[in-house]
Amino acid sequence: MYRFKKITLKLSLPFTLPFTLLLLTSIGLSAQTIESYPSNWWVGMKNPQLQIMLHAPGIGNASITLYNYPGVTLKKVNKVDNSNYLFLDLQINPTARAGTLHFKLTGTTGSNTQNTSGANSIPATFDYTLQPRRPGKGRQFAQGVDSHDLIYLLIPDRFSNGDPANDKIPGLRDQSLDRDSIFHRHGGDLKGIINHLDYLQDLGVTTLWMLPVWQNDMPDRTEHGYAITNHYNVEPRLGTNADYRALGDSLHKRGMKLIQDAVYNHVGLYHFFVQDKPTKDWLHEWPAYTNTTYKDQVLFDPYAATADRKRLSDGWFTPMMPDLNQNNPYVANFLIQHAIWSVEAFGVDGWRVDTYIYNDLPFMNRCNQALLDEYPNISIFGETWVHGVPNQSYFCCNTVNTPFKCNLPATTDFQQLFYGIQEALTKPFGWTEGVNKLYTTTAQDYLYSDPTKQVIFLDNHDLSRFYSVIQEDTAKYKMALSWLLTFRGVPQLYYGNENLMTGVTNPDGWVRLDFKGGWPGDPVNQFSAAGRDAKQNAIFNHIRTLARYRQHSPALQKGKLLQFVPEDAVYVYFRISENNSASGNNNTNNYSANRNIGTSDRIMCIMNTSNDTKTIDPKRFSEGIGTNTTGTDLPSNTSIDLHQPITLRPWSMLVLQLK
Amino acid sequence: MYRFKKITLKLSLPFTLPFTLLLLTSIGLSAQTIESYPSNWWVGMKNPQLQIMLHAPGIGNASITLYNYPGVTLKKVNKVDNSNYLFLDLQINPTARAGTLHFKLTGTTGSNTQNTSGANSIPATFDYTLQPRRPGKGRQFAQGVDSHDLIYLLIPDRFSNGDPANDKIPGLRDQSLDRDSIFHRHGGDLKGIINHLDYLQDLGVTTLWMLPVWQNDMPDRTEHGYAITNHYNVEPRLGTNADYRALGDSLHKRGMKLIQDAVYNHVGLYHFFVQDKPTKDWLHEWPAYTNTTYKDQVLFDPYAATADRKRLSDGWFTPMMPDLNQNNPYVANFLIQHAIWSVEAFGVDGWRVDTYIYNDLPFMNRCNQALLDEYPNISIFGETWVHGVPNQSYFCCNTVNTPFKCNLPATTDFQQLFYGIQEALTKPFGWTEGVNKLYTTTAQDYLYSDPTKQVIFLDNHDLSRFYSVIQEDTAKYKMALSWLLTFRGVPQLYYGNENLMTGVTNPDGWVRLDFKGGWPGDPVNQFSAAGRDAKQNAIFNHIRTLARYRQHSPALQKGKLLQFVPEDAVYVYFRISENNSASGNNNTNNYSANRNIGTSDRIMCIMNTSNDTKTIDPKRFSEGIGTNTTGTDLPSNTSIDLHQPITLRPWSMLVLQLK
Repeated sequence: MYRFKKITLKLSLPFTLPFTLLLLTSIGLSAQTIESYPSNWWVGMKNPQLQIMLHAPGIGNASITLYNYPGVTLKKVNKVDNSNYLFLDLQINPTARAGTLHFKLTGTTGSNTQNTSGANSIPATFDYTLQPRRPGKGRQFAQGVDSHDLIYLLIPDRFSNGDPANDKIPGLRDQSLDRDSIFHRHGGDLKGIINHLDYLQDLGVTTLWMLPVWQNDMPDRTEHGYAITNHYNVEPRLGTNADYRALGDSLHKRGMKLIQDAVYNHVGLYHFFVQDKPTKDWLHEWPAYTNTTYKDQVLFDPYAATADRKRLSDGWFTPMMPDLNQNNPYVANFLIQHAIWSVEAFGVDGWRVDTYIYNDLPFMNRCNQALLDEYPNISIFGETWVHGVPNQSYFCCNTVNTPFKCNLPATTDFQQLFYGIQEALTKPFGWTEGVNKLYTTTAQDYLYSDPTKQVIFLDNHDLSRFYSVIQEDTAKYKMALSWLLTFRGVPQLYYGNENLMTGVTNPDGWVRLDFKGGWPGDPVNQFSAAGRDAKQNAIFNHIRTLARYRQHSPALQKGKLLQFVPEDAVYVYFRISENNSASGNNNTNNYSANRNIGTSDRIMCIMNTSNDTKTIDPKRFSEGIGTNTTGTDLPSNTSIDLHQPITLRPWSMLVLQLK
Repeated sequence: MYRFKKITLKLSLPFTLPFTLLLLTSIGLSAQTIESYPSNWWVGMKNPQLQIMLHAPGIGNASITLYNYPGVTLKKVNKVDNSNYLFLDLQINPTARAGTLHFKLTGTTGSNTQNTSGANSIPATFDYTLQPRRPGKGRQFAQGVDSHDLIYLLIPDRFSNGDPANDKIPGLRDQSLDRDSIFHRHGGDLKGIINHLDYLQDLGVTTLWMLPVWQNDMPDRTEHGYAITNHYNVEPRLGTNADYRALGDSLHKRGMKLIQDAVYNHVGLYHFFVQDKPTKDWLHEWPAYTNTTYKDQVLFDPYAATADRKRLSDGWFTPMMPDLNQNNPYVANFLIQHAIWSVEAFGVDGWRVDTYIYNDLPFMNRCNQALLDEYPNISIFGETWVHGVPNQSYFCCNTVNTPFKCNLPATTDFQQLFYGIQEALTKPFGWTEGVNKLYTTTAQDYLYSDPTKQVIFLDNHDLSRFYSVIQEDTAKYKMALSWLLTFRGVPQLYYGNENLMTGVTNPDGWVRLDFKGGWPGDPVNQFSAAGRDAKQNAIFNHIRTLARYRQHSPALQKGKLLQFVPEDAVYVYFRISENNSASGNNNTNNYSANRNIGTSDRIMCIMNTSNDTKTIDPKRFSEGIGTNTTGTDLPSNTSIDLHQPITLRPWSMLVLQLK
């Protein structure tokens, strides 16, 4: 059994940091400040509505007026259950200019919290900043991440420590700092990531996805970032809001992109609006603690019980992460505005949405649409750790007529992992097993509206590292990486894929180890070839070769997939770009000048998933080979005659550029 | 490598049988007869078109005219590659009356076959019969088989020998008769089946489905009936066309129904129109023998290779069964007209379509639509031995937007078997395994337009017997049967389910053994309780109890399914009929008077798939229980208090009628 203890809000910030954005929005005229969320906004947004949450003791008892500001109207002041909150509905017309809004507070403001310091403590005015918009929408930011890209997922606490001064922040609940413990803070930060963008770009990465960067003032397990306690402050152990903006700017200057990890479903138990709830129905609360069942089926099952649906959606993800009631319009506005604020403030190009299926799906549709309305080129993919293409496709745009339709453009493609490449490399070839499973799972792509948007991967922060799953067999690992970088969809690497990091999820901390060389004084530096052993360099170079080739290959970036029925454990597929498909891409990355190879670009991939040498006759694949006569295996740079039978070593894969 | 040897047509029938229908249509004026297909037709059909295939040496060289017949026009005489054939296009207007059409042949008719007996041998006239239509369409025949029914599938050669005189027919290629060999003829026949309709009806069966009954004049393996050599003659070792009609009539008199097994994809190698092909493109022929790949995926895979699609659809099912070219309009008409002829001639109520996925799917749509146009109430389900709900649902009416849509109303639900009940009873409970697989496969029903039409089963003539699959564990077997008779869809038994017949498919003959007691002199007669041992009687009675209860339960016949997430290896589902859903049924079976229990009928099924005793709290299932307070377990007739925790024995299932 689990219940909230009502804890009063600590209004003095327990730490002092140059939160420039935040400072712009809160003016401390007396002992109290008024916190406002979003911390700022912009003029010229497509949606003229803005709802500001004000948080201060007793503010709900005040009357608020807006001093005259051309183009901006205070349409409504919403009082809620808790008098420590007010919600202001503003209309910001297209004519409004950037500047500072001045609000006046009048009337008694006595707080309903026990530690109220009285009406006098609330300031009589407060200001709110409207900034000019970030330039380059859809071109320099909010560009979208698609199959032209290569995503690199990392855990900020575990990648590199660029600023040892912020490793431990006085006043935060988690005061751990111990690289020997998988669940303690390790000191990695945004500066450390900025320091290694050269490394990532050299590897062929185009896009960075970090676990959430927002404040997690939780007592423990703060390394993952999913227990947000303040949406508008970067986690101080990772850096500042300015550091995050610098990271975004640094990526964009390189022609790289930024994915933000959105957590709409839940927050950390110590989030201010959990400890001091604005409304009685702010959270999904239960008579006794109720966990989600994690059973996605109830959402599309025509026979599901109502009670099972409620448990799935409204049950908590963990006892430490209260489930937000996204049906509450103030909650919904708060979350949607934070997403838009993030794009405009930091230049986010694409979104990964955490625990997608546990959200209220109609809310998610509104949230996704709000982002797409404001940023039409932006990409969004949701985490769908489910089993079965029918299950996964339900949560994104699909070809099925259902009473409710999700508008999520794509998902993290767990099916291609569990019932695709993992099966192919760990199970013997059978009628439905082994590489046949990869083949048939792919055939089920007909259920997706656009399968090329699916994000494919070998592992992530929640999964055993693929290199460990395949028993550290580098031959199989090369096959997996060749598949990842040549198959349909958007490929995603997990940090350490390139230097053979190992680990299984017993528990998940073992797949979240530090990147060697990321800390001052690390005895080995695997960011450089000298710090990697021969095996690691072979894998690093394998990825680098294909990832960099990819950047200039219309076939791999956007070519159509053609796959053949696997026979005798050999699976053959092609990527074919008949004319210059790259020209349809809006991205203006710095490698775009060189990316066009010609009007026809074909890649033939041949995977032998058996312990035996196999020989195949290319004639069967003439539809894919076309008029080409030779193929150059990209990893080995060897030439293959397509008029002769092709011999394949056991557990090997050819990636042939056809000529 | 495999090629046809052109074999000349033997025009003298090698056996003499009272094929009354056939005799009506062929008049032997000289040494030769003119075979016509269909062998007769009817006036008053919805579709006024009829295409008659005429087959006789050299007939293609003749000119044909129709003597004046009010309402009937000979619109076109089609000559084809082979001058042994002519195809007559007739228009039969609604005004036409039943009677005999007289055709006149003129001109030289010399044959192109080697054994031609010359122009003189062709008759100068021939007659064709138009009959009045069978009365009672949609009410007394072509009624459709749906979830109110219980299907019993049997192999006519292996069920009961009612007429030992027809066990061996001189002149047929297969002269085997040996009950000790699984691949030889055993002597079962239609008369034997007619003799045991009392038995089937007592068991609770409403519908008979037999393996195909048409002539299979093949050299061996004729027991299964799928290698048809003449579509218009009942296999003489099973009986006559008149016997088949008598069987249909006998079923209908009892309020029972008849399903015919359609084989559109292929015929036997010794079919007359294979041995003497009407057109060069009558069959799908290959430079070297090419088998189908059996890989259904190529039909919906967005990435499939054209060559793979062709191999799947046009490859042969076996070397002994040539693949028909259903794109040839004469082939298409032949097959569609045979289906309609079967309904009208024998009173077929529903169809099972063999090897559905290997057919040309646009042809199948036309064929299904032709049947549904003529017989709107008829049911059709296709064999889809595939893996995955996305795979299976593609072949029937579904909720997916695809470039090509199948119009097949339903399939044989292999998914509920392989990834449903079989998993539940053979694999330990896991996140996606065991009974959770049954649950999640069912949740994927959202891909079907109408999952209640799917035919569910435990085994059939191609599969290991379920009782053997579960290691002859009668506790599990009872659970399987309880599931079969209470789940959504149309349940189908396979002969021997009720008396614990065993067998695995090594090879398939072992699951096609004789029903004990079906042959004169059998030492044991398992058609009677005295011939069955205690275990067998327990199972027989288990089926009989539920099957007969089903006939009066709106909940089991048509009630909505409600399922709960399995927990701790216990799976709970309900069938709920809130008002009298049986009233929507058009069937007028003889048990319909008693079938209504009330305006609310609820069945609660609780399956414990663990080795341990389990206790569940009924409160979790209040959505299904409603205001009911007790449940009567139908198989054991014991009462359960729904206000108390319910205890379940290991591997047991309760089927509770709620009150």
